[in-house]
Amino acid sequence: MTIHPSSIFQDVEKIRKNAPLVHNITNYVVMNTTANALLAIGASPVMAHALPEVEDMAAIAGALVINIGTLSDAWIEAMFKAAKIAKSRQIPIVLDPVGAGATPYRTRTARELIRAAAPSIIRGNGSEIMALCEEGRTTKGVDSTSASDQAIDAAKALSRDLDCVVCVTGAIDYIVSQKAMVQIKNGHAMMPRVTGLGCTATALCGAFAAVNPAYDKAAAHAMAVMGIAGEMAAEHAPGPGTLQVNLIDSLYRLTEADITERLKM
Amino acid sequence: MTIHPSSIFQDVEKIRKNAPLVHNITNYVVMNTTANALLAIGASPVMAHALPEVEDMAAIAGALVINIGTLSDAWIEAMFKAAKIAKSRQIPIVLDPVGAGATPYRTRTARELIRAAAPSIIRGNGSEIMALCEEGRTTKGVDSTSASDQAIDAAKALSRDLDCVVCVTGAIDYIVSQKAMVQIKNGHAMMPRVTGLGCTATALCGAFAAVNPAYDKAAAHAMAVMGIAGEMAAEHAPGPGTLQVNLIDSLYRLTEADITERLKM
Amino acid sequence: MTIHPSSIFQDVEKIRKNAPLVHNITNYVVMNTTANALLAIGASPVMAHALPEVEDMAAIAGALVINIGTLSDAWIEAMFKAAKIAKSRQIPIVLDPVGAGATPYRTRTARELIRAAAPSIIRGNGSEIMALCEEGRTTKGVDSTSASDQAIDAAKALSRDLDCVVCVTGAIDYIVSQKAMVQIKNGHAMMPRVTGLGCTATALCGAFAAVNPAYDKAAAHAMAVMGIAGEMAAEHAPGPGTLQVNLIDSLYRLTEADITERLKM
Repeated sequence: MTIHPSSIFQDVEKIRKNAPLVHNITNYVVMNTTANALLAIGASPVMAHALPEVEDMAAIAGALVINIGTLSDAWIEAMFKAAKIAKSRQIPIVLDPVGAGATPYRTRTARELIRAAAPSIIRGNGSEIMALCEEGRTTKGVDSTSASDQAIDAAKALSRDLDCVVCVTGAIDYIVSQKAMVQIKNGHAMMPRVTGLGCTATALCGAFAAVNPAYDKAAAHAMAVMGIAGEMAAEHAPGPGTLQVNLIDSLYRLTEADITERLKM
Repeated sequence: MTIHPSSIFQDVEKIRKNAPLVHNITNYVVMNTTANALLAIGASPVMAHALPEVEDMAAIAGALVINIGTLSDAWIEAMFKAAKIAKSRQIPIVLDPVGAGATPYRTRTARELIRAAAPSIIRGNGSEIMALCEEGRTTKGVDSTSASDQAIDAAKALSRDLDCVVCVTGAIDYIVSQKAMVQIKNGHAMMPRVTGLGCTATALCGAFAAVNPAYDKAAAHAMAVMGIAGEMAAEHAPGPGTLQVNLIDSLYRLTEADITERLKM
Repeated sequence: MTIHPSSIFQDVEKIRKNAPLVHNITNYVVMNTTANALLAIGASPVMAHALPEVEDMAAIAGALVINIGTLSDAWIEAMFKAAKIAKSRQIPIVLDPVGAGATPYRTRTARELIRAAAPSIIRGNGSEIMALCEEGRTTKGVDSTSASDQAIDAAKALSRDLDCVVCVTGAIDYIVSQKAMVQIKNGHAMMPRVTGLGCTATALCGAFAAVNPAYDKAAAHAMAVMGIAGEMAAEHAPGPGTLQVNLIDSLYRLTEADITERLKM
């Protein structure tokens, strides 16, 4: 699989034109940031988790994003219900297994969601992707204790077993599908110091997958856009507070030239 | 009804002086933004939704703001309980029917709240206000699919039936009461690209209604302040990330001269 | 107790080096801000409240931060469960009694948590600290109606009865322990106009206590860093929106020279 700046930007233009509805069942910490990132790139985000409405919302969405960052039992039930509808409608489902490996509850929930929802794309950091595959692997909280390249084998196994795209993000992002593996080297060292940028990358996968049925490309395009916007944001950011704000601006202003000049594969 | 810059600013000064307690039962996405907007304009926000305390909190508040953006059954119960106390104390109740029309659950909840709470002010986008009136009208997510002027008739009907003030916001804001309709043309095209600015406008209605018992004027003043602060924020904002930050600064720094120079009715 | 700039910065360096996991059970309004503040200072924050996992998360954390800002019954149960594990592991527990005094539910919950959890550090504003001690004291919402110095006696009584460190923050911050009382006079008048900065100060106590077992010093160091970062942030902030962003940058960039030049005791 090769990734062209022009095809990345075609997806961006489709998102801006169609404003796909991205239904997020996500964590409290990042809701504001991910909603703003989706709006900035041109999508229409909605956050909805109540059992009486998740199915109706999934029924009108262009993509479903499930993120277990602050999960609890009622929310998990909503995730399963929404995923069932999304699956029946064949819209993309994107899963972010936040903190898998940190507690048995998260690891178990992430695995059960994967089995039931058959997500189109899974995006996590190295620790999380490894925790989805390996019994007994544990990690610390929600920050990765492993580099992304340590998780490549796990990502390949997951992708093969589930027939889905797996993104392992870190200093290098790996987008693994049955067919190929793409590396994207954009991004900035300060990005892990902003909460929820992994979750934001996941949310962007939802927007891209809503307009591009080749989910491996959609995921790679989303990771490229996230990394490039992060780089642009960091150039004028004295710290992670400003980076978070600038990132939203960069997503909003992103041009084809930005992508062409900056894409590092 | 005419709106004078000096009377708008009088309300701002009253808010700054009295710091009215605005009790919000609102959605997870916007809590931080609306709390900051209320603090910036001079009010004292509190977010409280637990059944064992919503009545006590409503009992000491100067206004109650109910927003159904990420509703669930337990929160709805809290909204009804708080509204009952607010009504008995005759403090203003402001309702934001976020996403009415997107799912039957939201539409039904918004309508039931309206009947039970008899809100003083309802603020929504075009789609939401129409969904409150018209059977079978549906919309996409929480972003409007209709211009605000398409919802004027619905707003008039709602205002008449409920004896309340209805704000339909969009490129033009319409503030509709039994007596009159005011148009406010401030604001900026980038504002809908920031999540929660509609919710923020609603929260500001709470602050203004807490200091001004003429709720039609309070609502119009709040919409004018929101639009003007948004315009000021956009002037130095390369994108919606910066706009969100600058808006808080503008609310904090707002002067009578800003209002006089910028108000467009 | 004396506080030296060099010992403050030693703690900062330890946090940056060890990235202690700080387990937060906190309120919806501030989750993003406190997570970003903890990341900016160098800690690894995790937000987890679900009953099936709070004990597992507390079992791997370096500190537990409990904040009752948007409490509800299920969350309170989680707070007690997590505190029990934290106590058995002898990791520091930091409590923020947000809004104690505003409703009986908050006052009662804060008092019960104090008895059961025996927190190492309690941080609140003047009204909150007084409400923990005095029967029948009430306050308005979550903003203080009392200056911090009015709460010194209450803080001393609490500290003595519970053998814990009590921080009363305001224009002057008082850090009260059995042994001594320290005053810190850093900070900026615009800080109370940003939501969640008190909660952020509390979260920083968690990070500092995770690396410094002298909890009185840890708390004083956290308050000094918070005040100094706030001052630095305010210097280039036209309003509270920018202040919130700059504060994160300042925590990230903080040097020993900043502390030496600015510390006011």
